[in-house]
Amino acid sequence: MAGQVPRPGELPDLQLPEKGHKLGAVSVRVTAAVDLVELIATLRDAGAEIVAINTFPATRGEPDVVRVFDFETRNLDSAQAAAAVRAVPGVAKAEPRATLGQIFGKRVIVIGGGAQVAQVNLGAVSEADRHNLRGERISVDTIALVGEKQIADAVRAVADLPRAHILVLAGSIMGGEISTAVKELQAVGIPVIALNMVGSVVKVADLVVSDPVQAGTMAVMAIADTARFDISRQKGRRY
Amino acid sequence: MAGQVPRPGELPDLQLPEKGHKLGAVSVRVTAAVDLVELIATLRDAGAEIVAINTFPATRGEPDVVRVFDFETRNLDSAQAAAAVRAVPGVAKAEPRATLGQIFGKRVIVIGGGAQVAQVNLGAVSEADRHNLRGERISVDTIALVGEKQIADAVRAVADLPRAHILVLAGSIMGGEISTAVKELQAVGIPVIALNMVGSVVKVADLVVSDPVQAGTMAVMAIADTARFDISRQKGRRY
Repeated sequence: MAGQVPRPGELPDLQLPEKGHKLGAVSVRVTAAVDLVELIATLRDAGAEIVAINTFPATRGEPDVVRVFDFETRNLDSAQAAAAVRAVPGVAKAEPRATLGQIFGKRVIVIGGGAQVAQVNLGAVSEADRHNLRGERISVDTIALVGEKQIADAVRAVADLPRAHILVLAGSIMGGEISTAVKELQAVGIPVIALNMVGSVVKVADLVVSDPVQAGTMAVMAIADTARFDISRQKGRRY
Repeated sequence: MAGQVPRPGELPDLQLPEKGHKLGAVSVRVTAAVDLVELIATLRDAGAEIVAINTFPATRGEPDVVRVFDFETRNLDSAQAAAAVRAVPGVAKAEPRATLGQIFGKRVIVIGGGAQVAQVNLGAVSEADRHNLRGERISVDTIALVGEKQIADAVRAVADLPRAHILVLAGSIMGGEISTAVKELQAVGIPVIALNMVGSVVKVADLVVSDPVQAGTMAVMAIADTARFDISRQKGRRY
């Protein structure tokens, strides 16, 4: 997809299963002797592209273990990734895992406040339940926030959230800096649904929906493989 | 915290601001010439501990840019991290960012299905809204799922989710493998609230709550700094 801006709703995603690419995950508990650079070089030399790394403090009470590194890899499965890192100095234990994408799938992000944010959620979670019953994996992730700067910062940060595929803005008045942030988010390929509200955000949103439950439902439909709903055909419409 | 299992609700978290530690984030757009190992070695040599890395495909249409690497660092702020990586071969652009922890904060995870999962969400999002108004950052993240194996796998994966601080199980019947997974999750320091339901999960949960809205509300209170609610004192109780 290099050199090309994706159509709304067609975001490529390295963290989701794609034809012809193995995905793997390994959780590695390490002592202070470990070198993260050496671990990554080892995975690379075994043929992996590194998709994600998350670091956690050790909390299981194992002696000498100071950190847990979770690696997600492409072109190497979980068992291969675990086997590759086991011999690296400082590795106490390497366990194959499911990738977060395999479990939690695509993410609908909801940002807003008050009564609306909970109602958008209700619609999105209920609709995701119906699609997940048919084998999909769609999560609904919500941050309740107020304030132009706070919301604009959160909208921008959606671009940095792994597996974020669509944003719903749930409020009564949003504009100014928030509308600028919406355009930046759309430029990386993430479409935005807004409730019908006061302010300029409804002019830049891909789709405006008056009812919050319907807005949450449509957001899930827009990214579901099991729904026939093409948000790029709804550009600028209001319901 | 090495060598010690945290009390329920007192999970240390490298991705959240902690006294005496700077946190930083930098988004790096790279060409095919870049070497991830060199980027990480550069950040390490500049004094950073790597907290997280996420990789995205390039979607802005910039020529030659093939990947976006987001790094989160400890002991280096965002501007320092961006300055450190700018000279690395293959870096087209390095932009300082807010960390995901600064924007989305601690996460309540809700797993379950049907009417209950949406109602738990309603309670959790409404309560998070109230705490976030007072300056906290608490997100509510939900995956609607059915099936013993599917739910057990998701419960285990909560341990690998950055900033996950508490889990709510929202269903009508859960036991067997799910109860085993709950015990594994508690062993890493993440407490579990269950609705009052059929099956053995209510015997292992830290807290059992009959009303789903109340369960979501209590989950947020349990991890909020602005609430006086100590889940470790509620161990095994039912409401």
